Amino acid sequence: MSRERLQQQIAFIIEIDKLKHVFRQTLLIDRSRHENDAEHSWHLAMLAILLSEHANEAQLDVLHVVKMVLIHDLVEIDAGDTFIYDDKGNQDKAEREAAAADRLFSMLPTDQGTQLRQLWEEFEQRQTPEARFAAAIDRMQPLLHNYMTEGSSWKRHGVTSKKVFERNQVIRDASETLWQYVDELIKSAVEKGYLQP
Amino acid sequence: MSRERLQQQIAFIIEIDKLKHVFRQTLLIDRSRHENDAEHSWHLAMLAILLSEHANEAQLDVLHVVKMVLIHDLVEIDAGDTFIYDDKGNQDKAEREAAAADRLFSMLPTDQGTQLRQLWEEFEQRQTPEARFAAAIDRMQPLLHNYMTEGSSWKRHGVTSKKVFERNQVIRDASETLWQYVDELIKSAVEKGYLQP
Repeated sequence: MSRERLQQQIAFIIEIDKLKHVFRQTLLIDRSRHENDAEHSWHLAMLAILLSEHANEAQLDVLHVVKMVLIHDLVEIDAGDTFIYDDKGNQDKAEREAAAADRLFSMLPTDQGTQLRQLWEEFEQRQTPEARFAAAIDRMQPLLHNYMTEGSSWKRHGVTSKKVFERNQVIRDASETLWQYVDELIKSAVEKGYLQP
Repeated sequence: MSRERLQQQIAFIIEIDKLKHVFRQTLLIDRSRHENDAEHSWHLAMLAILLSEHANEAQLDVLHVVKMVLIHDLVEIDAGDTFIYDDKGNQDKAEREAAAADRLFSMLPTDQGTQLRQLWEEFEQRQTPEARFAAAIDRMQPLLHNYMTEGSSWKRHGVTSKKVFERNQVIRDASETLWQYVDELIKSAVEKGYLQP
């Protein structure tokens, strides 16, 4: 194993520490502060391990889902977090994130860099069962946080239940079981006044 | 799939959000603040994926290592973080953490709770190749942070290079390649005055 290879890996490991500084719209459940991308990615990996049994498609490759959620937000080190209900910010998101992927993944040895880049693209394209499931839990986790914080980021951005239903159909694509749960959660959020009808 | 099962899983997912509030001795690389356990666990999962090729033992089960590092600090939600060089705090650590494991893992459906509990015990006992590798990267990541921050937590606690060498032998047990790297890093830290000789 070449020394250079290990040094490239370590340089990347040090670089991605920056993900801990990228803050999301989501509040932590105790509402003390916003969540950062590294914490969010850890939480998603836990959802992947605990909830993959509910996927519509049997025999998901769980390691594949876990890897995808661990790396899915790395591009935000350069591109920043774009709120899912921010239509304007979402216009040039793809471009900004692709440039970030170029820079970050090329820090790694070529084989690993290519592998992580492909994983990220697979996540973005949402065509495989694993990518669909990763997308579903990436929506479900902030929904839970929003519900538990009485709709904090929904209220801040004036988000309506119609938009939440629309944007979260990806959960249904991956898991009917999780969707049923989420569907009731959204309806309950409206009833409780956490979310505009 | 029973509704109760999903509700237990969701309750656990909400509970473990608290890991984002457990702070470690380690500073983030930009030194702006201390690292929390959720971020640390995410970072370790990335090290597991990127560095498992350097393990002494071929054919590590990477998903197993990843799961272990994702859950290894959950007990600190109740038991708090014990600094590795704090001899006093380490005396009743095992007891405090076992009680935390009892409470946390019993929130899950029995099969999953048992699985996670066993994973955590496997990590603690360090007898399998996967557990040894998980322990190695759990030591290596704070070493990198300490080096990059000019020995911040070593200086704060007056830690000597002798202690660092002793406590980090677990890295050697898991990977000669990583150990060689770490050995040079520690020597360089002493030379640069980040660490007492």
